[in-house]
Amino acid sequence: MPTDAEQACFEAGIKFGSLYHQFAGTPVSLTSAESLGRAMEESIENQPHCVDVDVEMRTDRIAAELAEQSADYTELTGRFLDVEMRIEYADVGVRTRMEMEGDYPRMKLVAVEE
Amino acid sequence: MPTDAEQACFEAGIKFGSLYHQFAGTPVSLTSAESLGRAMEESIENQPHCVDVDVEMRTDRIAAELAEQSADYTELTGRFLDVEMRIEYADVGVRTRMEMEGDYPRMKLVAVEE
Amino acid sequence: MPTDAEQACFEAGIKFGSLYHQFAGTPVSLTSAESLGRAMEESIENQPHCVDVDVEMRTDRIAAELAEQSADYTELTGRFLDVEMRIEYADVGVRTRMEMEGDYPRMKLVAVEE
Amino acid sequence: MPTDAEQACFEAGIKFGSLYHQFAGTPVSLTSAESLGRAMEESIENQPHCVDVDVEMRTDRIAAELAEQSADYTELTGRFLDVEMRIEYADVGVRTRMEMEGDYPRMKLVAVEE
Repeated sequence: MPTDAEQACFEAGIKFGSLYHQFAGTPVSLTSAESLGRAMEESIENQPHCVDVDVEMRTDRIAAELAEQSADYTELTGRFLDVEMRIEYADVGVRTRMEMEGDYPRMKLVAVEE
Repeated sequence: MPTDAEQACFEAGIKFGSLYHQFAGTPVSLTSAESLGRAMEESIENQPHCVDVDVEMRTDRIAAELAEQSADYTELTGRFLDVEMRIEYADVGVRTRMEMEGDYPRMKLVAVEE
Repeated sequence: MPTDAEQACFEAGIKFGSLYHQFAGTPVSLTSAESLGRAMEESIENQPHCVDVDVEMRTDRIAAELAEQSADYTELTGRFLDVEMRIEYADVGVRTRMEMEGDYPRMKLVAVEE
Repeated sequence: MPTDAEQACFEAGIKFGSLYHQFAGTPVSLTSAESLGRAMEESIENQPHCVDVDVEMRTDRIAAELAEQSADYTELTGRFLDVEMRIEYADVGVRTRMEMEGDYPRMKLVAVEE
């Protein structure tokens, strides 16, 4: 049988995959970034065992992207957001984070606290 | 060559398909409905020729759905939102609307104004 | 530090959330179900540590849904697919499954094998 | 009242927005590109008035992207596919195409045939 900590980590992963693949590809600009970040937080917080989602939109990187292209908006992808989440399952708390690791948006377990 | 009115209608359709299929499946509850509606409006307004998007979250229908199921959130689908959009292309304005027609979320041209 | 088993379970969760939220809302019918199931399998198998994805499209349930509605296609949602996945991380193998539990598409850890 | 040609163009736009925003962000590699293209074609062909969808996966561009990055898969975005569609509404046929125009994936009306 999986332990409570393993269950908690599984739940944490579900939330990350959900957030990323529900919203990747959304049109985003400097003016719409804030409302998109808020919607991501509140929608994923609906999922079971999800205590807190914090999305920081990387408007610095969006601005840099827009400076190099013809359109005045772009598509949401991993490097335009840093995410932290807190999941609780039974008595286990899990903290996770997504941030760029080189050119790859790495989702990682920060801490598993029993 | 397509007319400006035809181009405007094509652009209007793109916005509707985008809005629906980017956000369908998003976890939504009574408390998160507002932020999701706002994000839909602002993200699609980024697209070319899109002047205004108005999303009315049908929290009455979300509440009715939640009353009949075990989880306290559901997935965004057509009957949980009414949408109006205004598109402008060259000198043509197009007004569109999505609302339920029986059990089908019908996207329709309301007016093409030259 | 998270254990290898916890890391493996986190990775398993990511794949499930990704599969579900990338494809939920896709138009699906009896004739297109097979190609959609195949694309889900092959796209998620690209993700790190994902050894095998098996999607069984529940065409029985799609047929039942179509019999009760006006359109001849519907939108992909949890009850139209059963999914099994195998994830490997370091020396840990994780088997997971998604299937309906009452009215909710439950993603679960089946086994964590070290 | 909108003309049949305008309705046909609106329907054509819906299909394009749907295809793009349902599948943008999907993990894709050289080996999974074909099944993803096939699923896009068959799922969108379910939509009303959609006679034919042809998706050409630009594996040349996927290969070039993979050569420049660390992971061995990438995310579906506009430059990795060329799309042609045929829509029929009443007696009007519409042909549309999406292809890159500089750095932007332009969706365009090719012909409106009455």
